[in-house]
Amino acid sequence: MRAAVFHDKHDIRVENVPEPATVGPRQVRVRPYLCGICGTDLHEYAAGPIVIPTSPHPLSHAAAPQVLGHEFSGQVLEIGAEVTGVRVGDRVSVMPLIYCGHCYYCRRGLNHLCPKMACTGLSWDGGGISEQVVVPEHQIAVLPESVSDVQGALVEPAAVAAYGVDRTGFGAGDSVFITGAGPIGALAALYAHASGAAQVIVSEPNARRRALLEALGVATVLDPLTEDVPEVVRALTEGVGADVAAECSGSEAGLATALGSLRSHGTATQVGLHVGPATIDPMALSQRDLSLVGTWCYPVYDFPRIISLVATGRFPVEKVLTEVIEVDDVVTGGFDRLLDPEGDAQKLLVRVG
Amino acid sequence: MRAAVFHDKHDIRVENVPEPATVGPRQVRVRPYLCGICGTDLHEYAAGPIVIPTSPHPLSHAAAPQVLGHEFSGQVLEIGAEVTGVRVGDRVSVMPLIYCGHCYYCRRGLNHLCPKMACTGLSWDGGGISEQVVVPEHQIAVLPESVSDVQGALVEPAAVAAYGVDRTGFGAGDSVFITGAGPIGALAALYAHASGAAQVIVSEPNARRRALLEALGVATVLDPLTEDVPEVVRALTEGVGADVAAECSGSEAGLATALGSLRSHGTATQVGLHVGPATIDPMALSQRDLSLVGTWCYPVYDFPRIISLVATGRFPVEKVLTEVIEVDDVVTGGFDRLLDPEGDAQKLLVRVG
Repeated sequence: MRAAVFHDKHDIRVENVPEPATVGPRQVRVRPYLCGICGTDLHEYAAGPIVIPTSPHPLSHAAAPQVLGHEFSGQVLEIGAEVTGVRVGDRVSVMPLIYCGHCYYCRRGLNHLCPKMACTGLSWDGGGISEQVVVPEHQIAVLPESVSDVQGALVEPAAVAAYGVDRTGFGAGDSVFITGAGPIGALAALYAHASGAAQVIVSEPNARRRALLEALGVATVLDPLTEDVPEVVRALTEGVGADVAAECSGSEAGLATALGSLRSHGTATQVGLHVGPATIDPMALSQRDLSLVGTWCYPVYDFPRIISLVATGRFPVEKVLTEVIEVDDVVTGGFDRLLDPEGDAQKLLVRVG
Repeated sequence: MRAAVFHDKHDIRVENVPEPATVGPRQVRVRPYLCGICGTDLHEYAAGPIVIPTSPHPLSHAAAPQVLGHEFSGQVLEIGAEVTGVRVGDRVSVMPLIYCGHCYYCRRGLNHLCPKMACTGLSWDGGGISEQVVVPEHQIAVLPESVSDVQGALVEPAAVAAYGVDRTGFGAGDSVFITGAGPIGALAALYAHASGAAQVIVSEPNARRRALLEALGVATVLDPLTEDVPEVVRALTEGVGADVAAECSGSEAGLATALGSLRSHGTATQVGLHVGPATIDPMALSQRDLSLVGTWCYPVYDFPRIISLVATGRFPVEKVLTEVIEVDDVVTGGFDRLLDPEGDAQKLLVRVG
């Protein structure tokens, strides 16, 4: 079968690999339809292997070469003997995290912090950019009729963005400020709007991304290169500042802008993955009772909730999609295009099945 | 009357000043008994004026020269015509914050974040190191028989420490890690113990302060200069890390140690005032779902609760007291002694009345 396989940095190949031979008693064989390319995939391509293991993963035993893809919708082809929650033929979205189930974190519902965590398409024998993949039953979330395959492939990044907004402690009627209008920032803006934000304000230096964000119709969009963003945010919030902020740019400037735009006693989440150190002003944190909260992935039980919200029509995740590309074009039309700083792509999905 | 008056950096004088002439309808005249010297006072002495206004304060109209002292117990000498909550002769502790009462923050019970906030002994016409001071009625917390004058003078720093621990989201049975064993760190350790911490662990490089903290009998005390503190904290917490941390040292090393000693999904508060920038690792915040929460002063309504806890005997704040000094000795035996890095003093109170 055809699959996009990571061999090494700058070496992703679309090639033929064997179909998964067997389906374990609590496993499900899925035929992926559509699969997203994520920032983590880009990091692996540009500078990896980082997350992809080069020796057998302690939980999954997977190692490079690695079939990529952890944001996907598909159809169930086969179920293991003990699988009860999903049927052959079901349309599904796959929650890609695998965890031990027994550690301190797993026992507390924080499976995404399991020290042994693995991930389909990164550290598992198989991934979503492939004609077939076998995954544990707990990863399967069945899609209702009203949620499309495109939407189903976007549940994973939508869950990341939702957790990033949820962890602010945000409530309906609050003002939400977001730094960065990449896919996660755009999904965070849609989620905040769907969750009742009185207003959503987004700061993004890239003009193309500002235009894409504006086209969503849910946010006031600011340019940090020409505007004093914290001042404008205060002006938009009766002089007080945003109730909460989600830092989705992964940059030091974004972090400073997010904290600076908050009202006192407000909370900012660090959603964007920020590689390297950042300088903060702890005195400002203290004097203004500010909170800075890291967020990682999402609770593994959150997929059905996100799918239910998408099904209402109030969380139109498909609006962040730029284009669906074919699997054979995944390197040039996918990875290279997304890494081009002058590129036009926001979110790309790969048509697999 | 005798008072300790801040004139400028390195210029605090014990001198005669006029008694307050009048008591407003909602004001109370207090005769201070005992008053603490706080880190903020030391900053003013060493590098001020910082908080002390040099032109009339927008709310209180106070300006230097400033009678010092904002941590004090005393007795009520006179009450204004409209005062109903306190009687002449009552023993009291004074909550020193003054706020506008009408802004965004005051309306939400966050008066300590009022942009116009003033403070008795820093930006108010009068302070606690003085034979008399007139304060608003809302500052008065009556002391029960079972709370001593010494304890009453320590309610203010105890409230700072309590807020720093409370803002971690800590619950009884949790493990609490504290960096810095100065007066606030020591009070935070006592408060965490009184609040049901399963264990309290304190890191402090100064041997004298470690000994003082150990003498409190509530915490395991570590030396960050000779021990790998995050490793030891994990070893003390079944390999997981502390549930919460309170950074009470105001240092970059303390902040890194606090975050590094947390379990994933844990919260550290920035309680110590940290002047200047600090470098953090936002990726570690993200990957471990960590929260860093600034804390400033305390809720202005919190004094009665802290006094009630002290009254139970479970929060022996007096244990952090090194010595009571006389008012005429306040510069040499107080400020200079506390600023001496080789000094033996933890918390000093000034006997005023």
